[in-house]
Amino acid sequence: MGSPNTTAQGTTTRPKVDLKHFFNPRRVALLGATEGNSRFGGKCLGRMIDFGYQGRILPINPKYTELRGLPCYPSIADLPEVPDHIGVIVPADGVLAKLQECADAGIPFATVYSGGFAEAGTDKGRAMQAEITALARRTGLRVMGPNCNGMINFRDAFAMTTTATIAGPRKPAGDVAVVSQSGGVGQVNTMWRCQAAGIGVTYEVSCGNSADLDVIDFLEFMIDDEATKVVLMVVETIPSGERLAAAAARAADVEKPIVMLKLGRTEAGGKAAASHTGAVMGSDDVCDAALRQLGIIRAMDTSELVDQAMLLRQRRWPRGTRIATTTASGGNAVLLVDLGSSLGLTWPQYDDATRAKLAEVLPALGSNSNPTDVTNVAIGRPDIYQTCIQAIAQDDNIDAVIPIFTMSATTDLQQATTVAGQIDKPMAILWTGGCSNDPSFTPEQVAATGAPVFRDTYACAKAVKSAAFYGAYLRDRKARGPLARPGGIDKDAAARLLSGSAGTLTERASREVLAAYGLPRMREGLATTAEEAANLVAGFGAPAAMKIESPDIPHKTEAKAIRLGVEGADAARIAFDGIMAAAKAYRPDAQLNGVLVQEMAPEGLEMVVGIVSDPTFGAVVMVGAGGIHIEVLRDLSYRMAPVGPDEARSMLQELRTYPLLTGVRGEKPKDIDALVDAIVRLSWLGADFAGQIAELDVNPLRVCEAGKGIRIVDALVVAAEAP
Amino acid sequence: MGSPNTTAQGTTTRPKVDLKHFFNPRRVALLGATEGNSRFGGKCLGRMIDFGYQGRILPINPKYTELRGLPCYPSIADLPEVPDHIGVIVPADGVLAKLQECADAGIPFATVYSGGFAEAGTDKGRAMQAEITALARRTGLRVMGPNCNGMINFRDAFAMTTTATIAGPRKPAGDVAVVSQSGGVGQVNTMWRCQAAGIGVTYEVSCGNSADLDVIDFLEFMIDDEATKVVLMVVETIPSGERLAAAAARAADVEKPIVMLKLGRTEAGGKAAASHTGAVMGSDDVCDAALRQLGIIRAMDTSELVDQAMLLRQRRWPRGTRIATTTASGGNAVLLVDLGSSLGLTWPQYDDATRAKLAEVLPALGSNSNPTDVTNVAIGRPDIYQTCIQAIAQDDNIDAVIPIFTMSATTDLQQATTVAGQIDKPMAILWTGGCSNDPSFTPEQVAATGAPVFRDTYACAKAVKSAAFYGAYLRDRKARGPLARPGGIDKDAAARLLSGSAGTLTERASREVLAAYGLPRMREGLATTAEEAANLVAGFGAPAAMKIESPDIPHKTEAKAIRLGVEGADAARIAFDGIMAAAKAYRPDAQLNGVLVQEMAPEGLEMVVGIVSDPTFGAVVMVGAGGIHIEVLRDLSYRMAPVGPDEARSMLQELRTYPLLTGVRGEKPKDIDALVDAIVRLSWLGADFAGQIAELDVNPLRVCEAGKGIRIVDALVVAAEAP
Repeated sequence: MGSPNTTAQGTTTRPKVDLKHFFNPRRVALLGATEGNSRFGGKCLGRMIDFGYQGRILPINPKYTELRGLPCYPSIADLPEVPDHIGVIVPADGVLAKLQECADAGIPFATVYSGGFAEAGTDKGRAMQAEITALARRTGLRVMGPNCNGMINFRDAFAMTTTATIAGPRKPAGDVAVVSQSGGVGQVNTMWRCQAAGIGVTYEVSCGNSADLDVIDFLEFMIDDEATKVVLMVVETIPSGERLAAAAARAADVEKPIVMLKLGRTEAGGKAAASHTGAVMGSDDVCDAALRQLGIIRAMDTSELVDQAMLLRQRRWPRGTRIATTTASGGNAVLLVDLGSSLGLTWPQYDDATRAKLAEVLPALGSNSNPTDVTNVAIGRPDIYQTCIQAIAQDDNIDAVIPIFTMSATTDLQQATTVAGQIDKPMAILWTGGCSNDPSFTPEQVAATGAPVFRDTYACAKAVKSAAFYGAYLRDRKARGPLARPGGIDKDAAARLLSGSAGTLTERASREVLAAYGLPRMREGLATTAEEAANLVAGFGAPAAMKIESPDIPHKTEAKAIRLGVEGADAARIAFDGIMAAAKAYRPDAQLNGVLVQEMAPEGLEMVVGIVSDPTFGAVVMVGAGGIHIEVLRDLSYRMAPVGPDEARSMLQELRTYPLLTGVRGEKPKDIDALVDAIVRLSWLGADFAGQIAELDVNPLRVCEAGKGIRIVDALVVAAEAP
Repeated sequence: MGSPNTTAQGTTTRPKVDLKHFFNPRRVALLGATEGNSRFGGKCLGRMIDFGYQGRILPINPKYTELRGLPCYPSIADLPEVPDHIGVIVPADGVLAKLQECADAGIPFATVYSGGFAEAGTDKGRAMQAEITALARRTGLRVMGPNCNGMINFRDAFAMTTTATIAGPRKPAGDVAVVSQSGGVGQVNTMWRCQAAGIGVTYEVSCGNSADLDVIDFLEFMIDDEATKVVLMVVETIPSGERLAAAAARAADVEKPIVMLKLGRTEAGGKAAASHTGAVMGSDDVCDAALRQLGIIRAMDTSELVDQAMLLRQRRWPRGTRIATTTASGGNAVLLVDLGSSLGLTWPQYDDATRAKLAEVLPALGSNSNPTDVTNVAIGRPDIYQTCIQAIAQDDNIDAVIPIFTMSATTDLQQATTVAGQIDKPMAILWTGGCSNDPSFTPEQVAATGAPVFRDTYACAKAVKSAAFYGAYLRDRKARGPLARPGGIDKDAAARLLSGSAGTLTERASREVLAAYGLPRMREGLATTAEEAANLVAGFGAPAAMKIESPDIPHKTEAKAIRLGVEGADAARIAFDGIMAAAKAYRPDAQLNGVLVQEMAPEGLEMVVGIVSDPTFGAVVMVGAGGIHIEVLRDLSYRMAPVGPDEARSMLQELRTYPLLTGVRGEKPKDIDALVDAIVRLSWLGADFAGQIAELDVNPLRVCEAGKGIRIVDALVVAAEAP
């Protein structure tokens, strides 16, 4: 456990909470328990008992002396023992006082179900929620909620919630955890649907408004939980990008995938989520990039959470995107290849050894190609699938296996289930129909053995693609050393330029900030004589722009005191004399400092590079297509800062207009290395001064031919208001 | 029935086949029937009997005198009656002879299951299949297959197939037809899964290689079938764009939606499909555009076919994309709004009347907004859903209703089911969980009543969006008159220019073809004196390009006999003299016709416009972003030719770079009207000369400021080889 620590983002990294007794209390109290099943307090108590909790339950309600055969206590102060966890069911305006009583009694964890706080969208609601937060910070009482629907622990048979999803016999604990803000989406769409699909769950939490404990606290618990192999998250607001990054790093260390459904993809959705939780949303594009950078798989819908859990709990990470498929339905193979290819999956041919092995068992024409046609030959033969899939899984050209079944016999499906447990590569069974000889044999039964089963082709391909992403993420993470700060950075110089500045810096100051981080500066100088001007231009070896520098002549063009495209020493002398003469003629009494001689940027591709300050993820580096396309294409790529050269390069490769950098239609390739270096340096600048730089835009940044570097044509730094 | 007719595409529009006795034969024969269930012939016979066919079954096999209690005949010639339909189960190389016997016996329909034809990828296979096609054309015997898995008629209890999907008690006939080439995808992924979801099926056909009868023949039957409300299609190759268009038009006349899963979206998928059927694939982008133009909803996966059937069989077409949602799960509302908004759905506020009605029954805060929160108030109250949804459905701001349920009581779900049948707007029930008081009450049971039920949020939103597309399509189709040919088209002139041409036309000839269709011509003229040149340039009122016209000087730049940007009469005179002098100096003996004076195109946005000859859809008009972006962005829009101005405008609006036409960053808007007119004229040129123009590219076409027209800077027409 570390100590609280203020970060550049101004947020606080908190010590990890030990949630052991939150999830598995030795004793639990329920304030507001009632009889019967119609009211919340009665339903909650009933679920807890029916779910099979073995610890002591302490109902609290002055109206009862006994509830469901348990002694009922009039108040928190009257409890005979200190519970590890207390459920609080009282009207919103009574919550704070009761939480204070809990804290006074030394109860470590409280769950507040009551609504009427920030989600109500009223000032009063927000204020009451802030008071809960303050109480938690002050007293050390850790609070889940308000406006939440509690939690379920399938491992230890403890539930403190009203959800009907746990009615009936308790489902066996499994290997997938669900962390959600929303009760309905977490408990029903995700947990219950996982279980309906044959996937066992370890824990479910619906943490609601997150006045204190939030999704990241619960995520951390799941990462440490040894039974949990995959964490599914439904998140309306990410409480802190920095804390999420730390948790994601720990998850990656133990190779435990996190799959997140992050609401607020669209503006309308963001608005709906904001009115539901009262939080400010950052850009969804930034969120998308940041999650990818953290190795977090993003799901679009809860069905994708279930699909991902189905495959990832196998804990085999594909080494690539090369798929092998066996099938007795040619049409289904075409459909899978078609949809899988659109996601970047490939179906390579097998190597000679595999082809030889397949030829032994599948003598039919074309059946040792991939997809592998097992029509007629395989159906009903009890060993064919096992033999073929084992052979295929040993092929070095293959990273994952997807056997397809339609209406199939128990024996064939059981073979696939068995072989899924024997091979060491990921295997996703795509089973689109039913069982031909036993209608009671279902996909859920196959899934319950741990073998991943999918009903739909695209969903299957997408899950495999995401697993391949995760595999690549883990490999890249291991291969990559720690991020190295580039040389030639003068952090102090940049700090001096930024300190004291507030609001928009001048173009010249903005350029100097960039130059302090080693970004190339356009060459320029002030000439006071024609000879100096000639030397400057000759030194550039490139065309120059020349303009009067005078505090008294703001409109240089009107004064005809500007020349563009000046080449060579002679032209520079003539231009100098012309500019000075024009300036004198325009305003005879003007103070003339001389003529500013600037190198003109050579031809190149216009890009935009910048730093965005995201409310969740802090300093974010951005690159994209420049010029008119900033508005039109919004072809932009983001990463949390800082980034190394590999990440910077992958940002460029994500752009739709990336081919403009590599050269199309006979155009020469552009200086990608120089652009990559600029992105890296900029990202360090952003990271070093997170919180101090509100916004930074290099627009345009001109990328010249390969070997000829980049030019910062215009730049703008906006310093943040002092905190 | 019409007579065969050769079209511009060179294909034959065929008379509609009367498939009544194909689907519902009075007598049926099965050549190759066997005993037992292990072989194809035995399985097929068994399924037919078990499915409950009431007509006479005539098995044919010289090895048996009786099969399953039915008299078995040694040969086709020995049959006591002429069957309406015969199933043919013999090895590939015996098929042709047997089909001849069928034709000789006067049998109207044959289904050939045998594989080993075009799908084998061999010359022999292709040749044998061509012989079946020829036999069908010659004799009038209509053949389904080869390499197919037959058909199922749920309405009349007739099945001729081996599929295990119809094992067990016969499922009731419904209102959705399935037409597929693939057996597995059609029978299992689509038909069986429809039934598993509670949707009844009328007919299923798996027509395989389509040597004769093809998916469009079967589609036509389904359009005429009164019980069928929606047609689901799984298509590897569309046999004819023209026939599909005719069938789609008839389907739109009777407002019967067609939903198509067209394989071959990706190159890899196309390759897989081609090797599976042996057909040439056109561009998938063209296919996508053509299907939209025909009002055909395209599904990505078979799950989407099922989802579409679920909603569309309600036969209510949304008047727009404005959705109302009721829910007791705030998180699920956020998820639906988020995903729905990404598809273009909106959740507007209710009108005052609706809000007043809701306030009566839902007194809680915020519950008369949309999405409508019915938390606690509604749960278990037997009339709330019905009252609320009826009020909402009468609101003029609302086009469709999506109530959300998670774990819900039977009463609430039954209310929703009932109200779905009472209102006249489309209603899609999104039910993500189970039934809280009766686990045996399932979504399938609700669907079986005809109420659309969805399990997943995105799938639900996508189905509603597609229904809205279909509604808009039907409305636009009615509103739109017949396509009017624009004035100023000289078809004969274009015909003269194209006739006799083969291969690439010269730029001048290409421009003349376009000019014959009323596309603007760049002004130009040959000047033989300086004065003529001056008059021409003055007449343009715009800068001119001037160049020597001489058969002896091909390299005008080398001869310095070219001037660009000539403005005004004086400059034109000087340029004329300079060019003539340079030409004489360069080659004193050259024949000099004079100086070609051409208007230079003003500034503008570079686009590309053209005609593509698609193997399926014939002449297709194309427009897109020009210049470097042709390769990089592939920002192109297609339509089958000809198109009217509305369609041309919608092509432009589809482009990602459309804002460049309307003006961004203070740029003036471009002449969209002139561009629309050019697209329309070009589309008529393409349609009139389909088959004669192999390719036509106007690249670049420069779109000037609004009111200043377009310029055809370069154009290229490639005439097709004479047939």
